[in-house]
Amino acid sequence: MPNNPKNYSVVGTRPIRHDGLDKVTGRAIYGADVRIPGQIWGEVVRSPHAHATIESIDATEALALPGVIAFITGTDLAEANPNKKSPAIRSQADNIMATDTARYRGHAVAAIAATDRNTAIEAAKLVRVEYKPLPPVLSVKQAVSSEAPLVHPNGVFDHIGEAVKHTNIAAHIRHAIGNVDEGFKQASLIVERTAQLEMIHQGYIEPHNAIVNWDQDDRISVWSSTQGMFAIRDHMANLLGHPESNITVNPVEIGGGFGGKTTVYLPPIAALLSKKSRLPVKMVMDRADVFQGTGPAPGGEVTIRMGVNDDGKLVAAEADVRLEAGAYPGSNIELPTAWCFSTYDIPNISSNGYDVLVNKPKSNAFRAPGQPQAAFCVEQVVDEICLQKGWDPLQFRIDNAAGEGTRRSDGVPMFSIGLKEVLDTAKKSDHWLSEKPESYGNILRGRGLALGFSPHMGGPSSVRISLNRDGTVSLSEGSQDIGGTRVALAMIAAEALHLPVESVHPSIPSTNDIGYTYTTAGSRVINATGIAVWDAAHALIEKAKYQASEVLETPVDQITFSNGLFKGTGDETLSLADIARLVDETQDALEVSAQANPTAPTNGFAVNICDLEVDSATGKTTITRYTAIQDVGTAIHPAYVEGQIQGGAVQGIGWTLNEEYKFDDEGTMLNSSFLDYRMPTTIDMPMIDAILVEVPNPLHPLGVRGVAETPIVAPLGAVSNAIYDATKTRFYQHPINPQKILTALISSPTTQQ
Amino acid sequence: MPNNPKNYSVVGTRPIRHDGLDKVTGRAIYGADVRIPGQIWGEVVRSPHAHATIESIDATEALALPGVIAFITGTDLAEANPNKKSPAIRSQADNIMATDTARYRGHAVAAIAATDRNTAIEAAKLVRVEYKPLPPVLSVKQAVSSEAPLVHPNGVFDHIGEAVKHTNIAAHIRHAIGNVDEGFKQASLIVERTAQLEMIHQGYIEPHNAIVNWDQDDRISVWSSTQGMFAIRDHMANLLGHPESNITVNPVEIGGGFGGKTTVYLPPIAALLSKKSRLPVKMVMDRADVFQGTGPAPGGEVTIRMGVNDDGKLVAAEADVRLEAGAYPGSNIELPTAWCFSTYDIPNISSNGYDVLVNKPKSNAFRAPGQPQAAFCVEQVVDEICLQKGWDPLQFRIDNAAGEGTRRSDGVPMFSIGLKEVLDTAKKSDHWLSEKPESYGNILRGRGLALGFSPHMGGPSSVRISLNRDGTVSLSEGSQDIGGTRVALAMIAAEALHLPVESVHPSIPSTNDIGYTYTTAGSRVINATGIAVWDAAHALIEKAKYQASEVLETPVDQITFSNGLFKGTGDETLSLADIARLVDETQDALEVSAQANPTAPTNGFAVNICDLEVDSATGKTTITRYTAIQDVGTAIHPAYVEGQIQGGAVQGIGWTLNEEYKFDDEGTMLNSSFLDYRMPTTIDMPMIDAILVEVPNPLHPLGVRGVAETPIVAPLGAVSNAIYDATKTRFYQHPINPQKILTALISSPTTQQ
Repeated sequence: MPNNPKNYSVVGTRPIRHDGLDKVTGRAIYGADVRIPGQIWGEVVRSPHAHATIESIDATEALALPGVIAFITGTDLAEANPNKKSPAIRSQADNIMATDTARYRGHAVAAIAATDRNTAIEAAKLVRVEYKPLPPVLSVKQAVSSEAPLVHPNGVFDHIGEAVKHTNIAAHIRHAIGNVDEGFKQASLIVERTAQLEMIHQGYIEPHNAIVNWDQDDRISVWSSTQGMFAIRDHMANLLGHPESNITVNPVEIGGGFGGKTTVYLPPIAALLSKKSRLPVKMVMDRADVFQGTGPAPGGEVTIRMGVNDDGKLVAAEADVRLEAGAYPGSNIELPTAWCFSTYDIPNISSNGYDVLVNKPKSNAFRAPGQPQAAFCVEQVVDEICLQKGWDPLQFRIDNAAGEGTRRSDGVPMFSIGLKEVLDTAKKSDHWLSEKPESYGNILRGRGLALGFSPHMGGPSSVRISLNRDGTVSLSEGSQDIGGTRVALAMIAAEALHLPVESVHPSIPSTNDIGYTYTTAGSRVINATGIAVWDAAHALIEKAKYQASEVLETPVDQITFSNGLFKGTGDETLSLADIARLVDETQDALEVSAQANPTAPTNGFAVNICDLEVDSATGKTTITRYTAIQDVGTAIHPAYVEGQIQGGAVQGIGWTLNEEYKFDDEGTMLNSSFLDYRMPTTIDMPMIDAILVEVPNPLHPLGVRGVAETPIVAPLGAVSNAIYDATKTRFYQHPINPQKILTALISSPTTQQ
Repeated sequence: MPNNPKNYSVVGTRPIRHDGLDKVTGRAIYGADVRIPGQIWGEVVRSPHAHATIESIDATEALALPGVIAFITGTDLAEANPNKKSPAIRSQADNIMATDTARYRGHAVAAIAATDRNTAIEAAKLVRVEYKPLPPVLSVKQAVSSEAPLVHPNGVFDHIGEAVKHTNIAAHIRHAIGNVDEGFKQASLIVERTAQLEMIHQGYIEPHNAIVNWDQDDRISVWSSTQGMFAIRDHMANLLGHPESNITVNPVEIGGGFGGKTTVYLPPIAALLSKKSRLPVKMVMDRADVFQGTGPAPGGEVTIRMGVNDDGKLVAAEADVRLEAGAYPGSNIELPTAWCFSTYDIPNISSNGYDVLVNKPKSNAFRAPGQPQAAFCVEQVVDEICLQKGWDPLQFRIDNAAGEGTRRSDGVPMFSIGLKEVLDTAKKSDHWLSEKPESYGNILRGRGLALGFSPHMGGPSSVRISLNRDGTVSLSEGSQDIGGTRVALAMIAAEALHLPVESVHPSIPSTNDIGYTYTTAGSRVINATGIAVWDAAHALIEKAKYQASEVLETPVDQITFSNGLFKGTGDETLSLADIARLVDETQDALEVSAQANPTAPTNGFAVNICDLEVDSATGKTTITRYTAIQDVGTAIHPAYVEGQIQGGAVQGIGWTLNEEYKFDDEGTMLNSSFLDYRMPTTIDMPMIDAILVEVPNPLHPLGVRGVAETPIVAPLGAVSNAIYDATKTRFYQHPINPQKILTALISSPTTQQ
């Protein structure tokens, strides 16, 4: 459905991405491919206990191993910056490497560097750490009980630097609009449910890695798989008390991030090992380290209470979001607490969010941070309301959809949003209009529907464009490319300059060679960096007008540029390639830079429709048809927009049906490999139909809204509702795997909490 | 003597260079240090004959060697771009790899790639090339004789694309001012001498290298030691018929260039091997390859004729410059032909330059291209005139010095030059005023004086500056740093921004990430790139005024910046660090780019004074005192300016006393190693006293004139004149080594031609 209101010539087409062939042929350079002359290897020693005090660390034997060069403990990191910029940095440092207490299974407690990887691994095994195990806190329910052990008995700082003492609740956020008690009084039906969420991992293919060279001039060079080179620079500067300008982060390709590569784990460790050894240090995690030692999406509990009146209008809603921070403060409670009801126009809302400390890895974002966890519950509650009232679930959502001016839970009114258009598209979609498949035999069939929302952010971005002498342009930008942003940004430049996209050559230089650019996160790149590219391209045109002015013998302010041609007062015209030739002749250089920093959310709304069948004999669920409809503002490169939507849907389906961290009673993860941690593969999935709705964002020159986060929000509800439709059983606890389904079907169909 | 007319706070100081510690500790990454995943190694097959037709090339045996992957001949390169941009490119391609005829010993005729370097070397030996030797042309004298074989019997294209046929004279340039015949009629003394020059090598420590990755998307990535990343890009684009924007040249450190790393030898070969193998190909020359297969400074013959009248005024001068192009057109005749008399104010000049083809490697620049060869003769002729007339050689030069408006041989008047100031400084210098050491026993002592000049160029440069959040700035620039330009450019930014130089972080990104910047050559970087840095720093200040305007509540056009502080109409001031904090708070990015393209020569003049002793028993010459005085306009970093002058003096002394390519009658170089090719080492040299004269260049915001080329021009004359003073023997043939001196002293002291 992409439309083309402005007669774009490049925007909306589907060119091959510039980095595509390198990637499919294995030539692209990822972090682990980088090799620096003189490099040695580092390896982390990790805690085998989910909770234990560290009594002593003895590296004598390890250091005696031939080839072992340097050794650090958490104390080295803690002391690296005694004047840490904010207390929160101390928590971050302690998470990166424990000092007195190991707070989760896999928590780094020491690291060692040796001439080669195998020696480093062997040496790490020879480090003798004496632990005194403590009882672990392993769930939100347990953590908030009065008898629970404290994850931080001596207190800890939360992410805004406030001290958290005598509790496992690191933060409590509350938002309210209207009067929720009065609202519920108007309701003729109130449904309240609590969903149980397990920790799950983003499952990026590429493990974390780092090469760091701390040279004798105290300059630090970093190569590391990351969503944000400047984020690494900032984190390193804060953690190590090092001027950010003495830290260079170099670009490498990223093999997936999904929110999990927005912070640092290995780079500060490799930096300290490099400082000690005065050699470049390389570190690469294995998959178990990635599962146990990085930041998965939090599990927890979400309670949703919603009320409707007899007119079919939602009148009040309440949310109680308790997410696992992990062992250090900072889960993802901000977004679900502020925005979990943002798809609906509800006058009275109260929402509470709790950031709960548990002895598990410190959690992180997974696409839309915390939003799928809340939507899993919200969208099933809405489904229950519709079913109890006999209302059509799509029409109900249309009637209650958020629109222009609808206030979010945090009171901020939304403007110029495309939810109604998305719902209209769903209503007219082939999938929704198609006959719902009927069950037969032991094959139970169902259809489910759910909404999804993520605000999508802006933030600072810098770009640079220079005209090459062959009439093409080079485009440097600071946004790490995860999902095809290089080609999309090149398309924006091509559109502005009236060039074919092949004539725009995008690249990502080091943090030294481009202005500050925020992390590739929050669906922000084509919004923020896209604006900077658009502005830079126009600045290039303005600058080129000076060359055109001389040839066309027209004052520069009378030179026009349209359809790729500069024109003066006469008939003669010049293309950008002509300008390039002029620049070549005069041996000049034509280069501009531009920055953008949009601040408003761009608001991505989606409807997902899911058909599935459940085999009541095995409990296996098979998705048979899946349609994801989303307002993307403008799809610069529809194929990659569709790819984002398809990928988000698949991840959301995996979250619903299969994925979870399984812990034993001691807090040891039982399934820390891709064999045991069940992610969906292509054979588990049908084609995901992505339908793009384009309601242009008025704050973006091309109408872009961003796309990446929203797609993961709706699937949990859509799949759960479809499973209910098929099995007449409610599951408020994911993963809804064969075991749970069989257990439920063997007992009577009912709501499973 | 550095002065500080503008009260600079950073300019004129001597900070440690940013790249210094990396270099002294061996951490800096040079071309040969780069390693790309999957890389294989290439090796060149070179002609053992100075002149031979290539009858056949058979790689069957080589390709059968396990591990051998790809093979190319000159035909592959010749056919790579059938529509080469200019015919001159065909000559360049043929020089890089011969097609039908090998034209010098060491001429590349084929190349082979294998899994590792040793296999590639072995495979290269197994390539069977059948040659039919031809008589070689080995000197300028031989080349111009009518019986000489032709280096290009079928013609060749010169560097401007004109066809050269039936002759070994590839080009003839003529410049004249006044009437030289009339001029000589006014002379009471005319001296005419011919100097014999041998080919010599720049002698950079780091051999040529290249890693090239030609990917399946036809994008070419290059890592190679070079003076100009954009030059590699341009050459590769022309040679391979490839869009320049699909070629990325990545920065690596350079271990010396001196004019010899301005073109390409290995990169196009590695590119074609990479295209065939679809793997990254690495190539590194050994020292013999560097001597025999790259571009040394040309030898040849220079005849100088000068006339003075009885008033001590030079009235006429004639030059005949015949330099060895090597096997393909393009020696260095332009500069000496146009500018060999530029140190003197002579009303009547005629100069002829001849670019002579010989069966030797295609020559290249060595600092001031061709100028030392001419000055070797000019400065000795002037010395002879002074001696014959009994005039003081310094006073004579002062009386005849070029000044404001003096016309060069090519008719262009010079303006705002500092030669008189340089001569005045020499006259007052401790060295010149000191007693000339007297000979005793077999130790013959002498003092010599000579002038030097090189025009020093400008050309296009691009830079980018961004403000970091810690109040420092990152400076990206496109000029490869050979002699400390990163720190000098950082100093210019620091001066403009009122920051300490440690707060400016210079870096050189790839050709994708900075605007077009011409090669580091012609002493141009601190001139051209320096202007761009100055302009960019001021653009950053202008941009920062917008932030200052908000805080200081003053319209932006009333914000001032002085002494590092932004000030509005009130008393409050803001530093750049304050602006950085504001930028941090507002999450903005502050980044600018600027370009410069100065076109006028900046004119570097020098006087060198040399004291030496010659041991008449051994013929060995020892330099005992050496002073080099040069107008550098403004010395941004005096230590590195002095270093340039000292290095140039040492290279000029080596040129005069020791260095030469020695060929046998077949044209095989006999001394292609640093053991046999005698370059001066530190134990051969006294401290070179560099005296900086600073007559600011009015066309540069900081008065810079550039420095790098001039220092190599005067030493040949200064040392030769001192040797005459000591031995009473003239040597118009370098190197004036012990063998020549002994031979001369055994016969009677006289002029040796």
